[in-house]
Amino acid sequence: MQQKDSWLLPDGIEEILPADAKHLESLRRRLLDRFACWGYELVIPPFIDFLDSLLIGSGHDLDLQTFKLTDQISGEMLGVRADMTPQVARIDAHHLKHEWPTRLCYYGTVLHTRGDPLEKTRSPMQIGAELYGHAGIDSDIEVIRLMLEMLALTGLLNVHLDLGHVGIYRALSRQAGLSSAQESELFDVLQRKARPELAELIDSYALDQDLKAMFLALPLLNGGTEILAQARQVFTKADAELKQALDDLETIAARLSTLFPSLPVSFDLAELRGYHYHTGVVFAAFTPAVGREIARGGRYDNIGGVFGRARPATGFSADLKLLAALSSANDNVAPERKIFAPCLDDAALAEKIRDLRTAGHTVIQQLPGQAGDGAAMGCTAILEQDNRTWFVRNLA
Amino acid sequence: MQQKDSWLLPDGIEEILPADAKHLESLRRRLLDRFACWGYELVIPPFIDFLDSLLIGSGHDLDLQTFKLTDQISGEMLGVRADMTPQVARIDAHHLKHEWPTRLCYYGTVLHTRGDPLEKTRSPMQIGAELYGHAGIDSDIEVIRLMLEMLALTGLLNVHLDLGHVGIYRALSRQAGLSSAQESELFDVLQRKARPELAELIDSYALDQDLKAMFLALPLLNGGTEILAQARQVFTKADAELKQALDDLETIAARLSTLFPSLPVSFDLAELRGYHYHTGVVFAAFTPAVGREIARGGRYDNIGGVFGRARPATGFSADLKLLAALSSANDNVAPERKIFAPCLDDAALAEKIRDLRTAGHTVIQQLPGQAGDGAAMGCTAILEQDNRTWFVRNLA
Repeated sequence: MQQKDSWLLPDGIEEILPADAKHLESLRRRLLDRFACWGYELVIPPFIDFLDSLLIGSGHDLDLQTFKLTDQISGEMLGVRADMTPQVARIDAHHLKHEWPTRLCYYGTVLHTRGDPLEKTRSPMQIGAELYGHAGIDSDIEVIRLMLEMLALTGLLNVHLDLGHVGIYRALSRQAGLSSAQESELFDVLQRKARPELAELIDSYALDQDLKAMFLALPLLNGGTEILAQARQVFTKADAELKQALDDLETIAARLSTLFPSLPVSFDLAELRGYHYHTGVVFAAFTPAVGREIARGGRYDNIGGVFGRARPATGFSADLKLLAALSSANDNVAPERKIFAPCLDDAALAEKIRDLRTAGHTVIQQLPGQAGDGAAMGCTAILEQDNRTWFVRNLA
Repeated sequence: MQQKDSWLLPDGIEEILPADAKHLESLRRRLLDRFACWGYELVIPPFIDFLDSLLIGSGHDLDLQTFKLTDQISGEMLGVRADMTPQVARIDAHHLKHEWPTRLCYYGTVLHTRGDPLEKTRSPMQIGAELYGHAGIDSDIEVIRLMLEMLALTGLLNVHLDLGHVGIYRALSRQAGLSSAQESELFDVLQRKARPELAELIDSYALDQDLKAMFLALPLLNGGTEILAQARQVFTKADAELKQALDDLETIAARLSTLFPSLPVSFDLAELRGYHYHTGVVFAAFTPAVGREIARGGRYDNIGGVFGRARPATGFSADLKLLAALSSANDNVAPERKIFAPCLDDAALAEKIRDLRTAGHTVIQQLPGQAGDGAAMGCTAILEQDNRTWFVRNLA
C-alpha cells in the first residue's frame, strides 16, 4: 500500500497499483459480505456535500480537516467528506425512517486537509458499520463483536480492545455544575493528560473536595479490569448517571470476556476521543504492530436529531488501506493463474478462451507484434493446440 | 438510483440507499471480475491530485469541469479528478514501465463542477478499462469487445455501436496546411455540425476545390456501412494517412461483424468527441432508452508522453450508476433471504447464528426491547427452537 514514487503526488495521497489493489478489493468484499451477513446493508453517501450538512453536530477538528469547495451552480460552500459517519446517520434519520433498528455499513474514500500526526495518509478508505434505533448496551456489544470479526477476517492477531465511556466525564462535569466554557477547558487538559495543569485548573474552580478528588483521579483510571473496582471506590460520591456508566462498562466487559475469553481488554476512563460527538461507551482496537488504533467507535445518540430525528446510534469504523496493509503481512495466497493465448484468428481458440473466461479464468490474448511473451507477462499457463483441440498447458 | 429528497443535497450529487447500493455493488463486482478474466488488473488512482497532473494533455473542457482545492501542506493547487483515464495512463507510464502490453481497469467516483447538459449527475462512478503498449487495431478491437461484454453483463439489450476516427479530420487539416488556430476554429464548427457556417469558413481559407469538397462532405458522412464506400469516393484525393484511417475503420467493422453478427454499427466520420485527446478510432455505445452514449472510448496514443513515456493506448469507460439504473430494469432476482433470530443468551443459538453467517446467510438478531419484529424488518425466515435444536423456519 506504499506510494511508489512520491514526487508526482501530493503528500499523503496515494495511488494503488495492481497487486495492492487486488488485495484491497478482495478484503473489501470479504468485509462487506460479512457485514451483510449480520444484517448491515450497504449505503453509498456522496463524496461532496453542503458544508453545513457535513459539519453538523461535529467539532472544530472536523471543520479543519475538511476541504472546502465553492459550488458553481448554487454558489454555496461544499465540503469533501472527512468522515462518513454523519452522512450515514442522515440516511437513517432522513430517508429510512424505520421504527425498528436499522443496520447500515459503508465504504469510501475520505479526505483530510492535513491528516493526523500519527497517520501518513490524507485519504483513508473509511469502512464502517452503524446500528441505529437501539439505546441499550446490547447494540454496543453487537457492533464491538462485528468490529472484532472484521479484524479477525483481516487476519489480525494479538488484537487488544480499549474501552471507555464519555458519560463519566460528562456526568462529573454536570455534577460539578461546570459552565460549558469550563467543561471544554478541562476537556482540553484531560485530552492531553496534563496532570499538573489539571490540578491547577481544578483548584481554580470552586469545587468541593469530593469532586476535586474525582476529577483528579480520572486520568489515573486506566488499566485492566481492576480499574472498574477502583473506579467504584473513587466515584462513591458521584451521581447515579456516572454509576450507570460504570455499570454499563462492567456489563459490556463481562459479556465480551464470555464471548472472547482470550481478548485483552483495558479501560481508560479519561478517554475522550470524539467527546463532542460520542455520548456513551467508546472503544478502540489496537495491534502491537501499529502505534495507533486500527479501528474505533462508540455510541453517539444525538446525531440524527439535526436531520430531524434523534435516534440512538452506535458503530465503528476503520481505514481499509491500513487493514489491507496489515493483512498482507499475513497473506498466504497461491500465486494467481493467468493463461496466455496465442494471437490467431481461429474459431475453436476463440470459443476456448470464451469458455475459460466464463468459468472465471484469466486469459490474456497475445496482440500481433507485441513485445514480451506469456512468461514475461506473468502468465503461468499457455493455450496450445493438439490435434485441433485447444488445451491449457502449465508453464514450468 | 434516484435521490429520494433533493433539498439536502447539492444539484447532481446523489446518495445511494440500500436496495440501489446492493445492486450497484453486485454489478460492480461482476464487471471488475470480467475485466480481470481478460487480464485487466485493477488500479486505484487518487481522488485528488496536483491540478497540473490532472489536466495534463487534456482540453479546456476538463479544466472547467474540475473542482479546484488549495493544498494546505504544499500551497499548491489541487484538483478533484473529473476523469480517471489520464491518472491510469500515468500509472502505466510512470510506475509499471512494462515493454509488453499492459491492461488496467479502474472504478471510482469522479466529480464535475457543472455536469453535462445531458447528464443529471455531477458525480458519475467511472468504470473503465485501458490497454497500453499496442498500436494496432487488434487492441482497439479487444477493448470494443470488452466494452460490449460489459454491456451484455449489465443486461442491456439493443445496444448500438457508433464508430469514428479522429485521424480523418486530423489528416485533412494537415493536408490543407491549416494553422492550429484554423484547425480549432473549424473543429468547433464541425463539433456543432453547423453546415452553413462550415461552408463560410471553408471559403475563407485559401483551399483548392478538392480539399474544400472533402471538408464540406465530412459532416454528411454518417450512417451505415455504405458510408465507408462513400468516403472512399469523397476522399480519393486525400493523403495516405486519411486512407489508412478508412482502412482501419473498415477492418474493425468487418471483424466486429464476424464477432457480433447482429450488432448494429454506424459510422460518423465527423465525430470529434475527445478530439484533443484521441488520436485514432473512437467509438460509443447507445441503447434506445437513453438519449446519450452509455459507454465510450477510443485510441489516445500520446497521453503517456507527458509522464515520461509515450505509449500507444486504447480504452473505454462508462458511468456505473447509469449502467446500474439501466440494468435494474432488466433485473429479475429472487428476494433476499434474511433470517431473524430471537434475543436470547443461549450458547446453542449463538453457535447456530455463527454457522449460518459463516455459510453466507444473513441473520439479524433481535435487540432487547426493540420496535418491530422480524417480518417488519424484512426477514423471510426465523430461528426457532424445537427440542433444544435451533432450526430455520420460513415465514409465510
